[in-house]
Amino acid sequence: MIKSLNHKIMNAHIITIGDEILIGQTLNTNAAYIGNKLVDIQVFVKKASIVADDETEIIDEFKECWDKNDLIIVTGGLGPTHDDVTRQCVVKFFDTELEENVEVLDDVKKIFEKRGRKIDKINECQALVPKIATPIRNMLGTAPGFYIEKDEKIFVVLPGVPAEMNYMMDSFVIPQLKEKVGEIKSYSLRSNLLSTGIPESLLYKRLGNLNELLNGSKLAFLPNQFGVKMRITVNADTEVLAKNKLLEIEQKIRSKVGRYIYTRIEETLEEVVGRLLTERELTISLAESCTGGNLSNLVTNVPGASKYFERGIISYGNFSKVEILKVKEETLEKYGAVSEQVAKQMAEGVRNISKSNIGLSITGIMGPTGATTDKPVGLVYIGFCDDKVCTAKKFVFGEDRIINKQRTTQAALELIRRYILGIE
Amino acid sequence: MIKSLNHKIMNAHIITIGDEILIGQTLNTNAAYIGNKLVDIQVFVKKASIVADDETEIIDEFKECWDKNDLIIVTGGLGPTHDDVTRQCVVKFFDTELEENVEVLDDVKKIFEKRGRKIDKINECQALVPKIATPIRNMLGTAPGFYIEKDEKIFVVLPGVPAEMNYMMDSFVIPQLKEKVGEIKSYSLRSNLLSTGIPESLLYKRLGNLNELLNGSKLAFLPNQFGVKMRITVNADTEVLAKNKLLEIEQKIRSKVGRYIYTRIEETLEEVVGRLLTERELTISLAESCTGGNLSNLVTNVPGASKYFERGIISYGNFSKVEILKVKEETLEKYGAVSEQVAKQMAEGVRNISKSNIGLSITGIMGPTGATTDKPVGLVYIGFCDDKVCTAKKFVFGEDRIINKQRTTQAALELIRRYILGIE
Repeated sequence: MIKSLNHKIMNAHIITIGDEILIGQTLNTNAAYIGNKLVDIQVFVKKASIVADDETEIIDEFKECWDKNDLIIVTGGLGPTHDDVTRQCVVKFFDTELEENVEVLDDVKKIFEKRGRKIDKINECQALVPKIATPIRNMLGTAPGFYIEKDEKIFVVLPGVPAEMNYMMDSFVIPQLKEKVGEIKSYSLRSNLLSTGIPESLLYKRLGNLNELLNGSKLAFLPNQFGVKMRITVNADTEVLAKNKLLEIEQKIRSKVGRYIYTRIEETLEEVVGRLLTERELTISLAESCTGGNLSNLVTNVPGASKYFERGIISYGNFSKVEILKVKEETLEKYGAVSEQVAKQMAEGVRNISKSNIGLSITGIMGPTGATTDKPVGLVYIGFCDDKVCTAKKFVFGEDRIINKQRTTQAALELIRRYILGIE
Repeated sequence: MIKSLNHKIMNAHIITIGDEILIGQTLNTNAAYIGNKLVDIQVFVKKASIVADDETEIIDEFKECWDKNDLIIVTGGLGPTHDDVTRQCVVKFFDTELEENVEVLDDVKKIFEKRGRKIDKINECQALVPKIATPIRNMLGTAPGFYIEKDEKIFVVLPGVPAEMNYMMDSFVIPQLKEKVGEIKSYSLRSNLLSTGIPESLLYKRLGNLNELLNGSKLAFLPNQFGVKMRITVNADTEVLAKNKLLEIEQKIRSKVGRYIYTRIEETLEEVVGRLLTERELTISLAESCTGGNLSNLVTNVPGASKYFERGIISYGNFSKVEILKVKEETLEKYGAVSEQVAKQMAEGVRNISKSNIGLSITGIMGPTGATTDKPVGLVYIGFCDDKVCTAKKFVFGEDRIINKQRTTQAALELIRRYILGIE
């Protein structure tokens, strides 16, 4: 069945306002977030621009974009201080005026109440909204956004603080736009297969003949330090056809490199691990040395982590490894703290004291210092212990301390995932 | 002494080419890098834009920017595959043609030799350079850049791979532009004061009359979830005068809100804390509940953290609070895990078992669940204990789990900093 034909093709332009973006002090994560969300609902992002905190420049940009697009999304410059000029630019551009909005004023007051602070005039001014606009309420900060419809075009203004902007995009702007975009005639679907533990070139090689695999659809490889994301894009006349096409390609890819793929939805590896532990009613305890709490932090980022995680020990020095985890002093002396033997004893120790099903440990050298003749920076052992096995796996990562911490943590999560699923 | 007067004010526009940037799959780090470098040599970055991999769109953007600027820097779309169209856009825009450049061909061949790979036709084509351009040699990849001067304007094209682009900016573009910009007559200096623990609006209010404070210089407020960065920009005829001006403003700001400022250089709060602990030869141990290791993770991101940090306990469940940290069961029962009393006992406990100078603890409700009638999501107690005091401070943050973890961690670091410096 072909869907109705009233899908409106919408061209969009994203404007980011702020000197700090232009001079490279802050990365433009907002434009990326918005671009991603718009593409998801099949809005065509034609261009994006960054403009200085300058009234003339901003209004000029509004004018230019207004003529060429159906949708303009602006972020930044909505704060309460003198260098925030976006609101007055909106007022001038639309030749409108400000009026106090009771609901917004109420939101602002509530935020101050909750934080136990006294509200003053500057903050009350945040409740002044251009008459032409519907305010977009901000539950995380004091600056509301603005939603304007005029001449069949849409103009959206959001604050520059990423958390606030993200929230308002998700809760207000995207649902609103979905309605405007209407039923979709030609279905374009994307999916992302997230892989870890295999380099891009090897992944590419293992997939073999891409033309055969894709049969006209698109595949992009997007590597970062955690792994390689494979983005598949398919087009079809109906949603069902598009879904089938996508599924077929996904299955072909999985048959070749499936073991490295940890998810196909917007889910982090720690969420995958949390889901698996919960489903199987397993508990885990963690003993971290070199990662210094990074793994426990990620594990506890997942709501409901207390169901499977009761404690973690950061045994950064040797003394705490012996005292809390009961690592033997002679093992430390003989093999050193960064060794398979110590990793195993740490995993066993944390499992014993916490009475959890799984004990996992990490010991390694993150750099820049700490290397010896036979132990380079980047060397890591991850220990794993349950009621059947007690083992440790060796890894060698790179030179950068922070990236080493991240890659080690990722490897530990992947080790847990594979263990639970019985892979390898 | 006043410098010579031949400084040329140059307006610049940065164009980033690539669908992956526009749809938010890749962050635009290139524009940030270029913007930063240009500001350093006093080129005025007026605007930046992101354009899709589309010939018409790219050429339109070239036209628009050419009229309004003295300098245009373009990155991306120079690779060897079918979706890289930037070079042919340059050829069409300048109405020129391609010719093989012997030096570039040699560079490409050398790179293949070094990697032990056989060169093919696609790669040899990288040596085709628009006649009007001087090639910018690329020592890290196969795509050369282009430097074009026409009608007293400069047009630079660089590849999109960040490492290659950075290298070519530093080794060729910036030295070239410096010559064009000439001796700098007017000195522009910037500095950043990083504050935490005070909202933007209150900071603004406390600073009072900004015109008086700044006397013609500029001050920008840049908030994020960790605090507010204050960026000061001054202009003067000589470097010494600019430095003095900057110092004067910084001192005025410090006299009003100095206690909230934790650094004036590119230094994180955990680095500041690490520096202070090292200088004063103090050690610290951490007991984290709700932050789940986030604080320990940040503390151990700083190289050399082992000098002051030996262990951390993540007592996520109550059992580990009692067992490891010796929190009294009756205290837990009477006041609950999220209470001033338990925070104090946790701090005391971790200090005792680790024999460190300072014991710090965190207990709270990060959400989305866990709230009770009298304890909302966002409620946090941070305990602090040394040989003189044992205290706990209450905080109320927001609704978002991850942001709550980050803000709690930031508050704990700031509490340590202030304690060491004897502030408040």
